[in-house]
Amino acid sequence: MNATNRRTDRTRVTRHIIMATAERLYAERGLTAVSNRQIGEAAGQGNNTAVSYHFGTKTDLIRAITREHGDRVENHRASMVAAAAGSADVRTWIACIVRPFTEHLNELGTPSWFARFTAQANTDPAFREIIAAESLSSRALVQAMDGLNACLPALPLEVRVERGDMAAHLLLHAVAERERALAEGAFTPRATWNDAASGLVDALAGLWTAPVGRTA
Amino acid sequence: MNATNRRTDRTRVTRHIIMATAERLYAERGLTAVSNRQIGEAAGQGNNTAVSYHFGTKTDLIRAITREHGDRVENHRASMVAAAAGSADVRTWIACIVRPFTEHLNELGTPSWFARFTAQANTDPAFREIIAAESLSSRALVQAMDGLNACLPALPLEVRVERGDMAAHLLLHAVAERERALAEGAFTPRATWNDAASGLVDALAGLWTAPVGRTA
Repeated sequence: MNATNRRTDRTRVTRHIIMATAERLYAERGLTAVSNRQIGEAAGQGNNTAVSYHFGTKTDLIRAITREHGDRVENHRASMVAAAAGSADVRTWIACIVRPFTEHLNELGTPSWFARFTAQANTDPAFREIIAAESLSSRALVQAMDGLNACLPALPLEVRVERGDMAAHLLLHAVAERERALAEGAFTPRATWNDAASGLVDALAGLWTAPVGRTA
Repeated sequence: MNATNRRTDRTRVTRHIIMATAERLYAERGLTAVSNRQIGEAAGQGNNTAVSYHFGTKTDLIRAITREHGDRVENHRASMVAAAAGSADVRTWIACIVRPFTEHLNELGTPSWFARFTAQANTDPAFREIIAAESLSSRALVQAMDGLNACLPALPLEVRVERGDMAAHLLLHAVAERERALAEGAFTPRATWNDAASGLVDALAGLWTAPVGRTA
């Protein structure tokens, strides 16, 4: 290994340590409460501009964390979508939306921070566009949504848009709450991520196929 | 009016201004990003300990804001629950959960900040207990949940608990997103809070009554 390769390796390790540290601090204390300097210190970087040097702004760092996980979730989802091709079953397509996320969390083990990080980024006015943009760039997620829409009952467009938004909120925050409970050793209604995903698929199938009532 | 009454009045006005300012700043910038000092300045308080003097800690201030709105939501909900007494209709009870919240937002007018404030407080590890405690202290909400549970299909206890949590996430975040869109003049799928509530009642009825599938 020559000197250039060693430098590249060291850079990669440093970037990984900074991202993991940032994700943990953001998840536990909130995105706005944590500065780049605090992340650098907690990551053991002597130089207090290390985060800016490796990532740029806080927005760039949050995007990098989101993308790293997103790539792994996308791999799971691409396999599931390929297996679901041609299905007319609502639950099969909803599983393609839910399970790649919970399966990734299962692989991360306990404690993980990714779900809480994502739920907070999606709730924070300053960062929610990052999460939205990363979701839209997921080819497998678009395919799963297309598959689902093709087998949903006929719904007014506004109801379909609204239920998509509701489903995203429900999924993100329910999963983040379970991650937090696991990290704190608190009670969770389901024993495993796989079981929790089953509960989510049931609930979302109900939500997406619910009859549209009259306005009160 | 004597001197004591004038002082009491002035105190009440000051407290109101501080609470309204805090709610707006919290909703727009995030709970952790905003200090008591910033709130005092934005509320036009010359003394930079005004917030601590009138409310105590940030937690106390957040509890006071939550409680003020909560009392008004509770009044709406108590009327609806009284009118729903004896109903065996799932949607009637879900309406008792959803509509007092959206009706309060309708009365606040646009822009409002309460829904975004509440969604953020509920997502922040440091403050979520406040929201949970205030919800549990709402007699009308407990009655609405009892009414709903009495007419839901038989479900395993863990599924019932889990769907209650999911419904809370969905309601809080969907309503906060609509409030944000209204404040920013952005597109919303529904024209009015009343229509948005109808969409939420439909979706939550689907979620709560969804069949429980087999675990994959």
